Amino acid sequence: MPSMAQEPAQARLAQSSLSGFPEWLPAGRLVEQSFVDALRRTFELHGFSGIETRAVEPLSELTRKGETSKEVYLLTRLQADPAEQDGQEGTADPAKQLGLHFDLTVPFARYVVDNAGTLTFPFKRYQIQKVWRGERPQEGRFREFIQADIDIVGDGALPLHYDVEIPLIMHEALTALPIPEVTIHVSNRKVAQGFYQSIGLGRDQLIEVLRVVDKLDRIGAEGVRRELVSSVGATPEQAERALDLAGISGTDAREVARAVRSALGGAEPSALLAEGLEELSDLLAAAAARRPGALVADLRIARGLDYYTGTVYESFMAGHEDLGSVCSGGRYDSLATNGKRTFPGVGISIGLSRLLSRVISAGLLEVSRPVPTCVLVAVADEEHRGASDAVADALRSRGISADVAPTAAKYGKQIRFAAKRSIPYVWFPGQEDPDSVKDIRSGEQVEASASTWQPSQHDAAPRVLPAGVPAGTPAGTAPTAEPAPAADGPR
Amino acid sequence: MPSMAQEPAQARLAQSSLSGFPEWLPAGRLVEQSFVDALRRTFELHGFSGIETRAVEPLSELTRKGETSKEVYLLTRLQADPAEQDGQEGTADPAKQLGLHFDLTVPFARYVVDNAGTLTFPFKRYQIQKVWRGERPQEGRFREFIQADIDIVGDGALPLHYDVEIPLIMHEALTALPIPEVTIHVSNRKVAQGFYQSIGLGRDQLIEVLRVVDKLDRIGAEGVRRELVSSVGATPEQAERALDLAGISGTDAREVARAVRSALGGAEPSALLAEGLEELSDLLAAAAARRPGALVADLRIARGLDYYTGTVYESFMAGHEDLGSVCSGGRYDSLATNGKRTFPGVGISIGLSRLLSRVISAGLLEVSRPVPTCVLVAVADEEHRGASDAVADALRSRGISADVAPTAAKYGKQIRFAAKRSIPYVWFPGQEDPDSVKDIRSGEQVEASASTWQPSQHDAAPRVLPAGVPAGTPAGTAPTAEPAPAADGPR
Repeated sequence: MPSMAQEPAQARLAQSSLSGFPEWLPAGRLVEQSFVDALRRTFELHGFSGIETRAVEPLSELTRKGETSKEVYLLTRLQADPAEQDGQEGTADPAKQLGLHFDLTVPFARYVVDNAGTLTFPFKRYQIQKVWRGERPQEGRFREFIQADIDIVGDGALPLHYDVEIPLIMHEALTALPIPEVTIHVSNRKVAQGFYQSIGLGRDQLIEVLRVVDKLDRIGAEGVRRELVSSVGATPEQAERALDLAGISGTDAREVARAVRSALGGAEPSALLAEGLEELSDLLAAAAARRPGALVADLRIARGLDYYTGTVYESFMAGHEDLGSVCSGGRYDSLATNGKRTFPGVGISIGLSRLLSRVISAGLLEVSRPVPTCVLVAVADEEHRGASDAVADALRSRGISADVAPTAAKYGKQIRFAAKRSIPYVWFPGQEDPDSVKDIRSGEQVEASASTWQPSQHDAAPRVLPAGVPAGTPAGTAPTAEPAPAADGPR
Repeated sequence: MPSMAQEPAQARLAQSSLSGFPEWLPAGRLVEQSFVDALRRTFELHGFSGIETRAVEPLSELTRKGETSKEVYLLTRLQADPAEQDGQEGTADPAKQLGLHFDLTVPFARYVVDNAGTLTFPFKRYQIQKVWRGERPQEGRFREFIQADIDIVGDGALPLHYDVEIPLIMHEALTALPIPEVTIHVSNRKVAQGFYQSIGLGRDQLIEVLRVVDKLDRIGAEGVRRELVSSVGATPEQAERALDLAGISGTDAREVARAVRSALGGAEPSALLAEGLEELSDLLAAAAARRPGALVADLRIARGLDYYTGTVYESFMAGHEDLGSVCSGGRYDSLATNGKRTFPGVGISIGLSRLLSRVISAGLLEVSRPVPTCVLVAVADEEHRGASDAVADALRSRGISADVAPTAAKYGKQIRFAAKRSIPYVWFPGQEDPDSVKDIRSGEQVEASASTWQPSQHDAAPRVLPAGVPAGTPAGTAPTAEPAPAADGPR
């Protein structure tokens, strides 16, 4: 009797013939789909509406922030008529030229403006879609990948309690996945900007300070200190203060606030810093009450602070800190505007393909089988295929996935067909005798009726589990720990 | 008390600012997602594995059939380095130039070849993804749309019983949707080619005969007769015979075979015709036994016969025949080949966006609410937001979608917030008193505990229903009937 262990998901990895465009074999896709389903379930339980936006946006929309413009894939029609005036491609006008979206935030902001008259605010939406970035192939980055975003957007104003809800919902969603624990790190633009302001760094130096502090993991404290002085023009004392700020982390709201004030070294906190600290403290206190351990203040975060206007999120997976931030986001007071109305938003985004690729290639997951099929119905001979079809239909009508053997080969060969796909049961229509069903892992065969038989609960659908962990155990954390590197930047 | 009728889905239609790129408002997306879920469920019950392929293929792969080459969107990188030698875009080499896929068959064939060493055959896969066609904008066609495909592919050989299973599974999947009844029409390349051969039309005339017969709905029998004689070179007698063949339809295997032989007008049936008639008869007989009324032979089908090698499918929705074929497919003896091995396949594909767009814009559907939210938890004042959050979390932990009011406004305003989104229940945390929950449609308010209360079964999740039909009633068929026009061609 063939014995079937659970299959490591990585044995079924993508076989992509185009660099940067990952593709999964059926077992890998099954894992991906199970992750998408789990995320969607959590988001919907919290009242988020699912939307999809078109894959393309006008280039003018995509390059509003110049920084990302070099990653855009532009579209042209293979046989576009050069004389065609109303075509939206092949033209130099960036409002008519189309490109593939590189994230889900730009399209969502445009969608909010397009539909501002119909949507109800605050509008909570989730969006799980592929995005594309025209990276150079040699960089070994994904050029096509799935992002999973949640955002809440208001009309004119958006209460601050949503800054707490967004990361907690995402943490709940990530906790439902069979992956190592993820911790969400938070900072606040107003804290950083207010702090630098309080110690006498100018508004015009902010972006440069953030750029240098962001290098902390790569060049170390000494390197940051030197560069803040030499290239940003900070005094040694100011550089020291900035490093003190970057060293602050913790979950206790009061301790974090106290540490920030102490890092000022006697300087008077500006109004902006006080406002930021109050926001950050409220966030930490509310998060600690609702989901202890999910959120930690981390004032080393510099990436994204030039873009977001308040709270900022980055997230790290235990044992996989080298991957950088697995989900990032923040609050932007002007996510979208149509001239008359402004729509503030707060959101967070998972780079799902990158996360999935890591946990699969690290061997962290197993799938119980790569096909949905629970039962293979054997065929005695082609004249009796109809009887096997009827058994399969009866099973399906009760929600049990069934397939019928492709040919009326010898039963041993039909059982091997099932074993090769890890289908756990083979059904033998009985003709005159009663039907019987065999668990081909144990070899146990019992009489059964297609209108009443049930598989074991574990066998009903393919399961995705942490590798080497018995069914039902929550995801373990990988034992290795590497130093936290620079995060992967804002969405 | 606000009274809320179910909302017609068309009131929530797309608001797309780019012609040809449809986008749905949340209610429309909810319908789309429910259709995708229902299709997936049926496909998985039948043992199909879900896969996704990358959105791009090399141009050389996309233009293997020259016919569709003009619909391809090509990709270029916005700031591609002209000196870059290893880039896969911006080059004239069609093996390196990338384009967006225009269907799911070309990528699937390539995927089978790429992974032939790992996949197990016969391989049953479903694939539900967006595809893109660079249509001229003025044609008013979709340039981005969802296709839902099932295919079964063999290694070397593929049993004929799969020609029966594929359309029956698709019919089962379509029947699970709240749309008018769909009937799948079948023909067979060997019947058509064998028939024309038997009446003395040459092999080289086949494509032209098919092209003319395909115009039957547009130019009528007289027009077809004239054109077969004038431009194809058929005799009047041969033209008459071809029209007789095109007039044959029915569900009874023997009657159809008899009618075809009679249409020969005494000519001897060729071996190919005999083979085709046997295949078609077996298909009709098996389909009639398993799913009466799902399949009908229709020898007027001409589109796709130049491509497929055996059975061909087209499908029409009752009352919406003007839409053309809503799902099409067939058997191709050489779906894919890697030089050494040939992979025959049989499959069928739904143009999901087009189908959805029709049923929504025709007002055939209603959604019970546009948000997943079942309960809005009211907030007495901001100090007690934590209590409302706890109620919502308790409901969610039992699978009930819940949202918390955005602000502690007056209860009347919070109820209006729920009513505007068609959220059926508002929950009032009781502080010292017990909690209570109000059905805001009836106004009925009862004491409740967040750890035990259940909504009515109908309210648990948003429902998509045929318009004007009470819950639980199967989809009705629209009363109008228009003449069946030319079908929409092969996938």
